[in-house]
Amino acid sequence: MKLIVRAELAYRFPQPTPVIASLEAARSADQRVLTESLDVDGVDELVRDQDPATGERRFRSCLEGDSEIVYQAVVDNGDRQALPADAREHGWADLPAECLPYLLASRFCPSDKFMRFAQREFGGLATGGAKVHAVLDWLNTYVDYVSGVSTPETTAERTFVDRAGVCRDFTHLGITLCRSLNIPARAVSAYAWRLDPPDFHAVIEVYLEGRWWMVDPTSLAPVEGLVRIASGRDAADIAFLTSTAACDCRKVAVSVKRAVERDGLDAD
Amino acid sequence: MKLIVRAELAYRFPQPTPVIASLEAARSADQRVLTESLDVDGVDELVRDQDPATGERRFRSCLEGDSEIVYQAVVDNGDRQALPADAREHGWADLPAECLPYLLASRFCPSDKFMRFAQREFGGLATGGAKVHAVLDWLNTYVDYVSGVSTPETTAERTFVDRAGVCRDFTHLGITLCRSLNIPARAVSAYAWRLDPPDFHAVIEVYLEGRWWMVDPTSLAPVEGLVRIASGRDAADIAFLTSTAACDCRKVAVSVKRAVERDGLDAD
Amino acid sequence: MKLIVRAELAYRFPQPTPVIASLEAARSADQRVLTESLDVDGVDELVRDQDPATGERRFRSCLEGDSEIVYQAVVDNGDRQALPADAREHGWADLPAECLPYLLASRFCPSDKFMRFAQREFGGLATGGAKVHAVLDWLNTYVDYVSGVSTPETTAERTFVDRAGVCRDFTHLGITLCRSLNIPARAVSAYAWRLDPPDFHAVIEVYLEGRWWMVDPTSLAPVEGLVRIASGRDAADIAFLTSTAACDCRKVAVSVKRAVERDGLDAD
Amino acid sequence: MKLIVRAELAYRFPQPTPVIASLEAARSADQRVLTESLDVDGVDELVRDQDPATGERRFRSCLEGDSEIVYQAVVDNGDRQALPADAREHGWADLPAECLPYLLASRFCPSDKFMRFAQREFGGLATGGAKVHAVLDWLNTYVDYVSGVSTPETTAERTFVDRAGVCRDFTHLGITLCRSLNIPARAVSAYAWRLDPPDFHAVIEVYLEGRWWMVDPTSLAPVEGLVRIASGRDAADIAFLTSTAACDCRKVAVSVKRAVERDGLDAD
Repeated sequence: MKLIVRAELAYRFPQPTPVIASLEAARSADQRVLTESLDVDGVDELVRDQDPATGERRFRSCLEGDSEIVYQAVVDNGDRQALPADAREHGWADLPAECLPYLLASRFCPSDKFMRFAQREFGGLATGGAKVHAVLDWLNTYVDYVSGVSTPETTAERTFVDRAGVCRDFTHLGITLCRSLNIPARAVSAYAWRLDPPDFHAVIEVYLEGRWWMVDPTSLAPVEGLVRIASGRDAADIAFLTSTAACDCRKVAVSVKRAVERDGLDAD
Repeated sequence: MKLIVRAELAYRFPQPTPVIASLEAARSADQRVLTESLDVDGVDELVRDQDPATGERRFRSCLEGDSEIVYQAVVDNGDRQALPADAREHGWADLPAECLPYLLASRFCPSDKFMRFAQREFGGLATGGAKVHAVLDWLNTYVDYVSGVSTPETTAERTFVDRAGVCRDFTHLGITLCRSLNIPARAVSAYAWRLDPPDFHAVIEVYLEGRWWMVDPTSLAPVEGLVRIASGRDAADIAFLTSTAACDCRKVAVSVKRAVERDGLDAD
Repeated sequence: MKLIVRAELAYRFPQPTPVIASLEAARSADQRVLTESLDVDGVDELVRDQDPATGERRFRSCLEGDSEIVYQAVVDNGDRQALPADAREHGWADLPAECLPYLLASRFCPSDKFMRFAQREFGGLATGGAKVHAVLDWLNTYVDYVSGVSTPETTAERTFVDRAGVCRDFTHLGITLCRSLNIPARAVSAYAWRLDPPDFHAVIEVYLEGRWWMVDPTSLAPVEGLVRIASGRDAADIAFLTSTAACDCRKVAVSVKRAVERDGLDAD
Repeated sequence: MKLIVRAELAYRFPQPTPVIASLEAARSADQRVLTESLDVDGVDELVRDQDPATGERRFRSCLEGDSEIVYQAVVDNGDRQALPADAREHGWADLPAECLPYLLASRFCPSDKFMRFAQREFGGLATGGAKVHAVLDWLNTYVDYVSGVSTPETTAERTFVDRAGVCRDFTHLGITLCRSLNIPARAVSAYAWRLDPPDFHAVIEVYLEGRWWMVDPTSLAPVEGLVRIASGRDAADIAFLTSTAACDCRKVAVSVKRAVERDGLDAD
């Protein structure tokens, strides 16, 4: 699917503040960035990083006063497919080395604590695909999508107790349960077509049957409309802005539209 | 039921150490202490406290070196009854004032975090008695009795995730769920007939239909054989020994036998 | 000092909601309530509790829709004295039984974790009074008074790391350190003369040399102008409103003025 | 320095259990593995991973019953230098991209919570080197090396409160404080010459003035005798054995000796 993504962020920094921003669509194997532009007002020079292995990108700068960041791109995100229920899981010895970090507990995803629950609830299912689908169904049944219940410090353990949260919390709890089942799972930040209201989105990616599969634990956006920004162990790795000091966020506006071959944008 | 309880504790204190001990059977409205003896070796003088409202007792001393504490009593614990499923719950405005602290979250029982889960899982049931029985069934189904999983710092939140623990953990999680349902619930330390292996026991007490009812969330000991020692918000309030410094616990031996009218002890 | 205290609270309750309110000046040994009035609009009948031992009061009701609570009283808080640096501490065996709960760790005051720090930092001082003053100095030096850093779930452990908080957090950390030093310490909610901006206040009370002493860990209000509302192990016990469901707090207005014998209010 | 390292581990696995082991000396830029052998008894086939960027290695297998793992190597760890106090720190925009993950909070190193403390305590120092040395001095002064206080779940937040721990805890707290000062810091597992008693060791590595520097927050082993095994955000990344299920560890024996050119081993 060809998508036009746009993010406008405005911040006020009371003092010169180093930042790392993760906003750009990844130049990863599963999607192509056709055109893009990035403007950070008042800044001539950005340090831009691209991970050679994943194609994920970040930029670094030192911002001061009122700063506006505008990113726009046209991205072909290929043909994202829904995870089949019969997707086979790998043994540990049979995984690519780069998947191993995503088996381990991380700050917001303490999967080592959930072994007993996860095995009892999902362990008996035949395939990795069936297990992940059962985790998604469980989230959908037992956790409410509610804003304001969680904070940036909320862990999957807390969401499991609270039974409520936003996309970040659903993603953390879903990742945690998958890792408890010995399935590599990571967090992906994304632009999401048809997400309403539009915003940055967080989804889960699991490694089964030789590849990574994106799934949306909130069911709020279709997988075929997801544009990958960055991936990591949990939300801390993929924040769209990380800074050394508190700053005042004044605007986060995201839009994702489908590009139509001849006629420009479609109605979405 | 008439019961003979005995506790022998041995500690080594590297230095003179103030302690508070909660071992004596309560002289409460629901049981009678017929005879008893308390020996703390090497100590002539104990400060002995009895709560005028509850009849619960503690003694205080300063122990040093090797200390052995032996408590023995014959107690008639009356006629403890099982909680009926139709026991009615009280509105907040309709509770005795002394029940109110047991509605609130406490350190090991953070009931304020469990509202959503408890209401969804148990909230629809008709009576307080039915709700408490459903909580006990849930614990019995979803939590495993396993030693070594928990520590003295384990909270009900952690046990809810771990799905395993010992009597203290079952009691904390059960109390937490009851309080989330607006039912006053407290922890009770007890001598427990037929608990195997014998040890101090922790059970739940809930306030329904005008009185407190003991229930054993582990189902390891019959309610009719429980001898109350102390009650509190959670295990921290009812520890059998609290001291200002770490000490070396060398022996905890508990026995509970049924006294038979004419012939001495019965076979239990 | 004779003080006129007034609190106006307005809430919106989406549904009929049981509440427990702790707003009334205590009828305790250390202060006299000369006159008072309590109005809860739309409610004819309140359940009013008074603790026979402490004279602390609560009322219970079930509120619905827009509710306004107005409490006003004239209180003579006697002659509150500053804690002398040479106030002696008691051994555990030498304390009144009612002080013992305030030696133990509680939810927001996990004093059992702070033993090593407290002993090293304050343990060498000669008297309980000197230790408490050193704790207050430490708080004043190393913790910043900052709103918005903490939440109702913030524990003393977290404040010790964050090094910032509001009166509740200072109180919790101060209590924790006192208990780690084996000094009984509790939280007191109070009306506070000259607190700016006016609000409910939380302070510490320590038991030394045979009596309780109030100290303000924030140094924001003079001890002689404190009117006691309630005391407890930590903030959870003394919340001015506890309810079974979330409600919308629309107004909290507190005022404390000094009553002058003949001429009405003074200039404060 | 040329060192002969040897590790013998024995485990009992009640069922076939996938494991990831991180025991081998890294083939990193700062050291050379001259000879080595690895035996896992009863296993013919190991999956062996080597990170192309760092030279760190892991092996994977599925173990069952009694398993013994013996690793031995002769390693030239080059000429490890002590961190100079005047080593300059980098701005965020001036760091190699591969350092960025080590600026962020991780599970056991929640550096985002320590900003205020770290800045007040260490922030005024002139250089990154001076800051790191001040952190090490602080750890040495205020934290006690004590076994049994911490568990595998202990975070730097907890160690900061407890003021006691083992090498893992010192490393976590030191890393946390460095990251709070915006200095990239990571955990390194190592064989450590002259560590007494011999064991696997955990140390800190900070990035200053264009390179990584190892420092030992416990001061128990000289930096020039450290042989790198693996590095990561915290201890979870560098565990010497990670398994999908609990297993029984029956032996961990480590030895590190200095190799002497002509005459075999020296006296250490």
